[in-house]
Amino acid sequence: MIIVLKTDLTEEKLHRVAERIESEGFYTRSISQYGKLLLSVDGPNTERLLKEVTKWQDVEEVIDGHFPYYLASRKCHKSNSVIRIGKGDNQVTFGDKEIPVIAGPCAIETAETALAIAEIVKAAGVKIFRGMLFKPRSSPYSFQGIGKDGLEILDEIKKQTGLLVVTEVREACEADMVAEYADIFQIGTRNMSNFQLLKYVGQMNKPVILKRGMGSNIVELLCAAEYILSYGNPNVILCERGIRTFEQFTRFGLDIAAIPSVKELSHLPIIIDPSHASGKSSLVSSLTMAGIAAGADGVILEVHDNPEKAFSDGTESITPSQLKDLIKSGKKVASAIGREL
Amino acid sequence: MIIVLKTDLTEEKLHRVAERIESEGFYTRSISQYGKLLLSVDGPNTERLLKEVTKWQDVEEVIDGHFPYYLASRKCHKSNSVIRIGKGDNQVTFGDKEIPVIAGPCAIETAETALAIAEIVKAAGVKIFRGMLFKPRSSPYSFQGIGKDGLEILDEIKKQTGLLVVTEVREACEADMVAEYADIFQIGTRNMSNFQLLKYVGQMNKPVILKRGMGSNIVELLCAAEYILSYGNPNVILCERGIRTFEQFTRFGLDIAAIPSVKELSHLPIIIDPSHASGKSSLVSSLTMAGIAAGADGVILEVHDNPEKAFSDGTESITPSQLKDLIKSGKKVASAIGREL
Amino acid sequence: MIIVLKTDLTEEKLHRVAERIESEGFYTRSISQYGKLLLSVDGPNTERLLKEVTKWQDVEEVIDGHFPYYLASRKCHKSNSVIRIGKGDNQVTFGDKEIPVIAGPCAIETAETALAIAEIVKAAGVKIFRGMLFKPRSSPYSFQGIGKDGLEILDEIKKQTGLLVVTEVREACEADMVAEYADIFQIGTRNMSNFQLLKYVGQMNKPVILKRGMGSNIVELLCAAEYILSYGNPNVILCERGIRTFEQFTRFGLDIAAIPSVKELSHLPIIIDPSHASGKSSLVSSLTMAGIAAGADGVILEVHDNPEKAFSDGTESITPSQLKDLIKSGKKVASAIGREL
Amino acid sequence: MIIVLKTDLTEEKLHRVAERIESEGFYTRSISQYGKLLLSVDGPNTERLLKEVTKWQDVEEVIDGHFPYYLASRKCHKSNSVIRIGKGDNQVTFGDKEIPVIAGPCAIETAETALAIAEIVKAAGVKIFRGMLFKPRSSPYSFQGIGKDGLEILDEIKKQTGLLVVTEVREACEADMVAEYADIFQIGTRNMSNFQLLKYVGQMNKPVILKRGMGSNIVELLCAAEYILSYGNPNVILCERGIRTFEQFTRFGLDIAAIPSVKELSHLPIIIDPSHASGKSSLVSSLTMAGIAAGADGVILEVHDNPEKAFSDGTESITPSQLKDLIKSGKKVASAIGREL
Repeated sequence: MIIVLKTDLTEEKLHRVAERIESEGFYTRSISQYGKLLLSVDGPNTERLLKEVTKWQDVEEVIDGHFPYYLASRKCHKSNSVIRIGKGDNQVTFGDKEIPVIAGPCAIETAETALAIAEIVKAAGVKIFRGMLFKPRSSPYSFQGIGKDGLEILDEIKKQTGLLVVTEVREACEADMVAEYADIFQIGTRNMSNFQLLKYVGQMNKPVILKRGMGSNIVELLCAAEYILSYGNPNVILCERGIRTFEQFTRFGLDIAAIPSVKELSHLPIIIDPSHASGKSSLVSSLTMAGIAAGADGVILEVHDNPEKAFSDGTESITPSQLKDLIKSGKKVASAIGREL
Repeated sequence: MIIVLKTDLTEEKLHRVAERIESEGFYTRSISQYGKLLLSVDGPNTERLLKEVTKWQDVEEVIDGHFPYYLASRKCHKSNSVIRIGKGDNQVTFGDKEIPVIAGPCAIETAETALAIAEIVKAAGVKIFRGMLFKPRSSPYSFQGIGKDGLEILDEIKKQTGLLVVTEVREACEADMVAEYADIFQIGTRNMSNFQLLKYVGQMNKPVILKRGMGSNIVELLCAAEYILSYGNPNVILCERGIRTFEQFTRFGLDIAAIPSVKELSHLPIIIDPSHASGKSSLVSSLTMAGIAAGADGVILEVHDNPEKAFSDGTESITPSQLKDLIKSGKKVASAIGREL
Repeated sequence: MIIVLKTDLTEEKLHRVAERIESEGFYTRSISQYGKLLLSVDGPNTERLLKEVTKWQDVEEVIDGHFPYYLASRKCHKSNSVIRIGKGDNQVTFGDKEIPVIAGPCAIETAETALAIAEIVKAAGVKIFRGMLFKPRSSPYSFQGIGKDGLEILDEIKKQTGLLVVTEVREACEADMVAEYADIFQIGTRNMSNFQLLKYVGQMNKPVILKRGMGSNIVELLCAAEYILSYGNPNVILCERGIRTFEQFTRFGLDIAAIPSVKELSHLPIIIDPSHASGKSSLVSSLTMAGIAAGADGVILEVHDNPEKAFSDGTESITPSQLKDLIKSGKKVASAIGREL
Repeated sequence: MIIVLKTDLTEEKLHRVAERIESEGFYTRSISQYGKLLLSVDGPNTERLLKEVTKWQDVEEVIDGHFPYYLASRKCHKSNSVIRIGKGDNQVTFGDKEIPVIAGPCAIETAETALAIAEIVKAAGVKIFRGMLFKPRSSPYSFQGIGKDGLEILDEIKKQTGLLVVTEVREACEADMVAEYADIFQIGTRNMSNFQLLKYVGQMNKPVILKRGMGSNIVELLCAAEYILSYGNPNVILCERGIRTFEQFTRFGLDIAAIPSVKELSHLPIIIDPSHASGKSSLVSSLTMAGIAAGADGVILEVHDNPEKAFSDGTESITPSQLKDLIKSGKKVASAIGREL
């Protein structure tokens, strides 16, 4: 149960409301986001409490447990959330007219190759570089990423190219270290429901690309975002990256309807990852165009100058020249729907 | 196993090849399509036969059973199949630059309402009217369509508006009757694997919109098309209409990657049905744009002038004014990728 | 909408009720099953009619469209349906204490091999022989079954062994011919939603094994059964044969929970097909034990005396000696839950 | 790539092998488990290395990356792994003749209720108590568990009842604290791919119940187990708890075939969780019987003395009297297949 409180409530009154509820054996947590004051309440038989609380004078509205997210919803925040990252010429916005392209290798391999790809994607017009250092891999015998040694490489790329960088964070205790170097966190599909991690980055201010779990539905994605929002961080960018289906021609099934569905339910920006969704470089361009046309607020792409030699995910990486063509087409499609790539 | 024969083979020689194979206990069927001559062979242990046949002088190529379709593949027919329907100003092509829009009510209700919607969609620029008379419904207690009485209504619509019409055929014994009135057959998702029906329409020349089974993968869709092609009818238009997934916000999961995947594997045109895929009128426009951008060769839409009063599927039908907006946006997206809607 | 009428209603009164409803523009169909009298009504805005009809004195109960099946439900028929097939020593019952085993080759190949397998399964204690003549296959280049020539073989098997036989019927126009030879129809997974076929066999008295569509949910399976029941045939045996899931180690995912779920919702017997579900002979025995323990009312198995040489589905066929072991174990598990195999 | 080394290899030689491989730019990790010595190698183009290494005299076998797990496989360890937990009368074994029942509330609520349920399940013959303190919940507004305050409650339950206890661990940094109180860790479905956690518990000796991810396939489950095994902990008990499917009558689809499939591929014990799989208490008993008959090595059940008042998952909890009946039936089914519950 979520209690939306009157916005002019004093801290003292808030405490009193919380105490009164806790005295009946419930748990509470106070939340401040988007200029709203909320009290989250849980326990059995909240039905009775719900009826009572609705009448309290400090209470604006009570939302019962069947509606499992609120801050992430259009009900709470009507207009699109716009998330601004970086400064000056390098500033990028998600959720506005702009459709940023994020590109780079699946994993950072060496400083040289990473820098080379960074320069290539920059030349193609990309403003955000992706390069993972910590790779969650299904098999313990697959390349796990070069780890924290790579943080210096990210730093070097930022200095030399001016690009913003996004990299994955896998656990709460890693977040502070990664935050020093990354402009944007990525929380991967396997960690969408790592609530400890969500709570931790919720207490930071760093923008987060939150990927949908491969076995998670849209409501669960919004609930995961709600964790981050409710702990204080409003900078959440959702990412549709394909779900598990019976179709096996593509590695995952890109749920294109998730884009307009999320936009209907939520004000948060949503981007797509056609590389991981399809697992096939030949499909990446078409899926990117589809995503843009459907209203995606960005796209994250795997690019490698030598896909066949990539440490991981080579089959889905596009080449620099394919990236150039993709951006050219993407600009046209974006323009057709009144946006800019 | 499929044997691709030399194209200059005489009928007599073909018979001799077939006889020789049948004498070893195998079944054969001779197929003529796209200027090619094929012999389909089946039975156990074709491996041994495969090796032998490969050496025969009349044999161009032997394709083993692990590749379950051939005529539908790019391997057989490299360039896109272009399917022309209608004449003069009313001619429509699938598989070329044009992206035809098919629109109409889910089911034909009365002559008046059907004609009214037909005039509306025509005015919006649509060239093909959809209106089902025979509705396969999950429940026997749901509206089953007005049946063959509606054929005259289709005829009337054709005469008064000049629109081409598409309607569903559910079983072989119904096909000849429907063919007299319909310009295009629809074979619905529940009949994709009704092989008796596929074989029957394969022996006709009528264009067929073949919808993907909700539980069928891309290869099975191409195999279903192969039934029609191998019985002689080259006029197959595939349709992605959503598959069963665990996500329940939309009625089905539109598999957008099926579009570029089919284009990679096959030369056949493929259209999308965003209305049935999503089951939600609010998502139809975004999904249409996505489909066009991904390379779809057409779109089939449910339009109703009063969705709330529709006999079936009202929640997914768009209004005439939504159709007009959708076509306007669609034209821009089509143009951005070098096509025309 | 379904109207359950008072059971003492005269035919004349029934007509009057139907006429009154049709006069308001709705479609009706009268149904007689399980000693009940129903009127199925369809059209838009049945809500208003629903309210009115509820008050009519001849009406027992009105069930709105959100409950899409009725005859198949426990609501209509509280105790388990028991379906008796055959006579004397050869009689078999589904839905009672007995758990019949149906076994045989995937497809009938020759009279000799079919008879040999029939003798083998009989010796193992099986009372029903399965052998398909018409095989719906994904690829037109796969073995399609020996067709109607095989009907005589079924006849021969019945005469020589006394076994009951089940074979597939694919379309309405085939049903009468097949009915002369088969004791039980099988409607396969690809035809669960072939409503023309369901309606046709609904007008016969022949028992039907109705397999769940690979992309169909439990409610849709019960709706398919409702077609048959509502056209007059009460002899429906449901079959869980695996659904499409993302897991690819097995060919389909046997939905074991469908057994107790169907038993909760419906009075109809339900059997399982572990051979097609798994596609792996090594898993068949474990899945059979699971099915029996979960409450299945029967099991249908593919048995071949030489699985590697089978025309189709060899990888999932068990050998005669595996069948013997399976039946031995099955008897123990059946007995543990108070039943008999 | 995994290199299986000769078992008589000295530490020194192992280092030399590792150094030689690392000198070519690959990453290595040495693994000791089941009396075997392995070297895990990763990087691009391992094909060339694979060929070379195969010839080295210290190398027993080289397993390429297409086989992503080894220690968990029957290839490595032929006989069933038997995991013994507890001492004397309280000892429980997984993977042998015994089929242990684990039971308790979804979440620990208060010391009183937890103890009461513990006494009840003990009286019913259960030897392991489940009670979660840290609850990963989709919504931040759902009850998150009473947390570490509950550890003392677990301790109390152990002392008063002699039951073994299993509780969930969500992140690496929590593991040491939880290990002091729990006899068995549970790693939940949302953490199956939390590789940091897997690596951490891999370095402990505590038995782990590893639940399958709701969107993960069988091979990925075995890979997750491989993480734990390869870091040194052999005490892994797998758990099938239902996967995401399109069927929505049950909360998840219990993949019953996963039991014999895992047994074919792996030597590790596998148990089932019918409570979370179905989400419906009425189905729990049937699914438990199915699991036992299919070969499951244990079952984990949610039991609550007052399901309607449970803080979480009340709809799937069975009552104490249902537990008693379930155990009675379970004993019979277990005995039918030669095992003991």
